[in-house]
Amino acid sequence: MQQQKVLINSDRLKRTLEKFAEFGRTENNGVTRLSLSKEDVAARDYFVSCCEEIGMTVKIDDMANIYATMPGIEDKPPLVIGSHLDSVKKGGRFDGVLGVIAGLEVARTLYDHHIQPKIPLMIVNFTNEEGARFDPAMMCSGVISGKFEKAKMLESRDVEGITFGEALTASGYEGEIENRLTEATAFLEMHIEQGPVLESESLKIGIVEGVVGMVNYEIAVHGESDHAGTTPMWMRKDALFTATDIMTQLRTKLNALDHDLVYTMGRMNVHPNIHTVIPNQVVFTLEARHKDPAVINQVVQIIHEVPETLGGCSVSMEKLWGRDTVIFDKKLCDQLEKSARSLGYSNKRMYSGAGHDAQFISSYLPTAMLFVPSVNGKSHCEEELTSYEECANGVNVILDTVLAISEY
Amino acid sequence: MQQQKVLINSDRLKRTLEKFAEFGRTENNGVTRLSLSKEDVAARDYFVSCCEEIGMTVKIDDMANIYATMPGIEDKPPLVIGSHLDSVKKGGRFDGVLGVIAGLEVARTLYDHHIQPKIPLMIVNFTNEEGARFDPAMMCSGVISGKFEKAKMLESRDVEGITFGEALTASGYEGEIENRLTEATAFLEMHIEQGPVLESESLKIGIVEGVVGMVNYEIAVHGESDHAGTTPMWMRKDALFTATDIMTQLRTKLNALDHDLVYTMGRMNVHPNIHTVIPNQVVFTLEARHKDPAVINQVVQIIHEVPETLGGCSVSMEKLWGRDTVIFDKKLCDQLEKSARSLGYSNKRMYSGAGHDAQFISSYLPTAMLFVPSVNGKSHCEEELTSYEECANGVNVILDTVLAISEY
Repeated sequence: MQQQKVLINSDRLKRTLEKFAEFGRTENNGVTRLSLSKEDVAARDYFVSCCEEIGMTVKIDDMANIYATMPGIEDKPPLVIGSHLDSVKKGGRFDGVLGVIAGLEVARTLYDHHIQPKIPLMIVNFTNEEGARFDPAMMCSGVISGKFEKAKMLESRDVEGITFGEALTASGYEGEIENRLTEATAFLEMHIEQGPVLESESLKIGIVEGVVGMVNYEIAVHGESDHAGTTPMWMRKDALFTATDIMTQLRTKLNALDHDLVYTMGRMNVHPNIHTVIPNQVVFTLEARHKDPAVINQVVQIIHEVPETLGGCSVSMEKLWGRDTVIFDKKLCDQLEKSARSLGYSNKRMYSGAGHDAQFISSYLPTAMLFVPSVNGKSHCEEELTSYEECANGVNVILDTVLAISEY
Repeated sequence: MQQQKVLINSDRLKRTLEKFAEFGRTENNGVTRLSLSKEDVAARDYFVSCCEEIGMTVKIDDMANIYATMPGIEDKPPLVIGSHLDSVKKGGRFDGVLGVIAGLEVARTLYDHHIQPKIPLMIVNFTNEEGARFDPAMMCSGVISGKFEKAKMLESRDVEGITFGEALTASGYEGEIENRLTEATAFLEMHIEQGPVLESESLKIGIVEGVVGMVNYEIAVHGESDHAGTTPMWMRKDALFTATDIMTQLRTKLNALDHDLVYTMGRMNVHPNIHTVIPNQVVFTLEARHKDPAVINQVVQIIHEVPETLGGCSVSMEKLWGRDTVIFDKKLCDQLEKSARSLGYSNKRMYSGAGHDAQFISSYLPTAMLFVPSVNGKSHCEEELTSYEECANGVNVILDTVLAISEY
């Protein structure tokens, strides 16, 4: 006979999500909880108190990352669950915080059921994931995984000129470097999808196998500014017309690539941007993401096929940045899928199009992610929504996986 | 036997142009002489002294327009020559000032040759033609021709918050309303072409039959902002992709219209203009000019054929403004052409694509314009250039026409 599954307390999860939504609540039921702001510190304080209440030991590292540990029967590297408590300006009530609360609810459930895990359970809150106050995003998972240089990060300034280092000290959450996460049996990050795929396919759970690779190019078209009234069409070197032609060519070619490719021309500036003057410069970005590096290479090739001169204008391009596809731990993904199935939740394997702390942690620890659906695919906005039931589904999958990994 | 023609003093014209280029000279040999600035006032003072030196009577109206008159044998409405002394910021040495100096050189030539014109000769300098310091352009020809309300113009502010009314009083050039130009036998404005047509056709003189009509629309595309990494292409409502498609459709249709049509999409703003966010709003302008109202109507029809929804986005449009084609006095144009031919200068009839004081004055006085070539079609920039020889050609045509009109 199958053993009855231990499940989380869905009501408590809902209350906890509602409680955290108070820290930085906006008028329209969103959240502004910029990293190390007083709202973020209040959320941190509450999180720490919740963990201590159930006997967890809380440590802080030099980047203000918080680690709460529940001892295991065996003294092995911990099983880590976490995400981030900070939000963007006028962000939502789920992005980040859900992954931290997931860990808390798993710990609370074990505590309720007097289950001591075989290996230690750790909840982590990474500092400044959003990069909304201090650039770059995923700053502190990046520092502890060696992606970013700490000294440089300390100098990052917010819009008021405050450095990250100053905010760190002022927050009271500047801990010791020896507390950094260095080893773990596994790292699990549960997150809202931030996209419409699960909802549109009526699925409950996304097993995230990795984070798609991406490239971001800036394409500049240089023409000539002449008087809009006195220059015949055939004598013009209109940078906007040429840019439009290039964009159309790029779209036609990119649309012929793999169906999963996403690409965006999100930023575009026209100069001098006066209705009576022919534009002499247009600069736009082209950002493309796909899990398969071969497809990204095709995108790069297409970008390099843009002619150097077109419509009397010269065209230049620059790669601003890119990232390689991150592939998560297969064994962990398999286990997440097994747990989801065992709980009867419809699910699919997918890649994350957005960046997460997990992508840096996966460079040195076995890592996987789990997505729950985002209503209308919205995130980073006050309308961001995942039903409490679907949040609970996700946390139950995490709990099941935690219990299963203890048996590894 | 043909009478020997009276010609202007080309050397003096050159020296005078060089002299006026001192008032507000920029580092790169351009001019910044904003309306009623100290540079403009210095140019005005010098202009007045030049006129008085040859016995002309100088009067100023309530909009600081300057009128210098040489009496005629008969007391008839004057033959008026003029343009404007003000420039844009970092503008050129010819735009506007050439038309005023043309009048001065004609008067000086008559003076040299002891010719008293049959009818009075008047030179006019219109205030704030460029609109570069105080919006709108052609402000003071507009006020005296009833296009603009004086009280409103007095409230127009420059970037420092100074009103036109305050600048007017401070300039010392605030005269009497009864001095406004109310009647004339003819008004002639000589100007640089500000376009490349004459140069590209190797012509010396443009006989300007009118100013093209125009319409200016703003087209707004409203889509949805989603995460650039997580939203599949087929679920996007990308305002920039839709805007690009609309622009391409518009260009295809507009390119099929009359060859003389000029149109420009000069201003385009993308929102939120972040490389990782799908644009949810794009607003761009479409401005089109043609002498034939029927062609402008075709443009308007094409704009209204833009679909209300496309690519998941909604599209709206607004006419910002337009102006009807202005047609100059045929008899005056015929005379200018006759004069140009008699002097052996290659010439063509053409329309002005840019606006000029003459378009307002033509609403109540017989008016025509004459263009001389602009090197590379450039204007409103420091590179603006018309050779002194071609300036002199133009002034000789004006002189010949003045002498001919005296015989009307």
